Amino acid sequence: MSEVPPIEPIGGEALYEGSQFSVCRKRFRHADGEVVQREFVRRMPAAAIVAYDDEHVWLVRQPREAISQYTLELPAGKLDVEGESPLQTAQRELAEEIGQEAEHWEAVRSYYSSSGYSDELVHIFAATGLRPSDTEPDPGERIEIVHWPLADLDGALAATNDAKTVVGLQWLRTVV
Amino acid sequence: MSEVPPIEPIGGEALYEGSQFSVCRKRFRHADGEVVQREFVRRMPAAAIVAYDDEHVWLVRQPREAISQYTLELPAGKLDVEGESPLQTAQRELAEEIGQEAEHWEAVRSYYSSSGYSDELVHIFAATGLRPSDTEPDPGERIEIVHWPLADLDGALAATNDAKTVVGLQWLRTVV
Repeated sequence: MSEVPPIEPIGGEALYEGSQFSVCRKRFRHADGEVVQREFVRRMPAAAIVAYDDEHVWLVRQPREAISQYTLELPAGKLDVEGESPLQTAQRELAEEIGQEAEHWEAVRSYYSSSGYSDELVHIFAATGLRPSDTEPDPGERIEIVHWPLADLDGALAATNDAKTVVGLQWLRTVV
Repeated sequence: MSEVPPIEPIGGEALYEGSQFSVCRKRFRHADGEVVQREFVRRMPAAAIVAYDDEHVWLVRQPREAISQYTLELPAGKLDVEGESPLQTAQRELAEEIGQEAEHWEAVRSYYSSSGYSDELVHIFAATGLRPSDTEPDPGERIEIVHWPLADLDGALAATNDAKTVVGLQWLRTVV
């Protein structure tokens, strides 16, 4: 790999502060001395789970108002509990969204959703050895749990248009 | 698939207008009558290209100030030219970023980057039969063209943390 020069943040300001994300304008100095200015979204990281047993991968179908669609997705949630690690968030979300806990956890990969304008980082885990969790699931209204057959992962990939779910299911296709 | 109820937009307002994206607050009525309010980012769609020949996939390494990192990515760009289709954007970006045109184009898939807070849609195409384009590449400063061996796609997947690139390379691994 080529040598990667540093990108030095040298100040900036908030442009918008919302409850779900914020927008800032910041200046950065590149190694060649040039200073550039960028506006981008600051968004809390998230964790998503590829939870599967011998026959199914456990997905959720939920409304995404920003795109006016219901989407088929991996269970997931934001790292919005102070001090929680990505794995702990994944474990909490698995219980809350589909009412399961898992014996085995594996870090699949992390990625930035769209780093041209956002700093959102998503951590994907695989969870196996599923069993009902002590806590009742609280997936919220209008969220449906979907057991999709492992034998039809291509069908699931055709039925979703959600980034984390595409990444997770394409990975799952290589291991089952 | 279950019946998917409609999500009806019933008004809203702009909260922030930037040159690269905007933020809005909108209200939506669900089929059960409940009205919810959401704040989200509106962002132009993008097109990305999995361009490969018999030996290499053509990538770019570029600074992403929002995450203060250089990232290894598919060539890509926004659909920011009036009237241009996603395929036309992909063809333009392939020439501008890596100075190539392609004989064969295939739509790989489209996905939403993170529809919990953004409407950004990314279209991924595969391009083969590469040859130098008439137009000189104009990748911009600090953008490096990287020829990654097809024999080491796992290495490329380990070296990138960019969503579109993960999706595109996972797909490429199934076809080469």
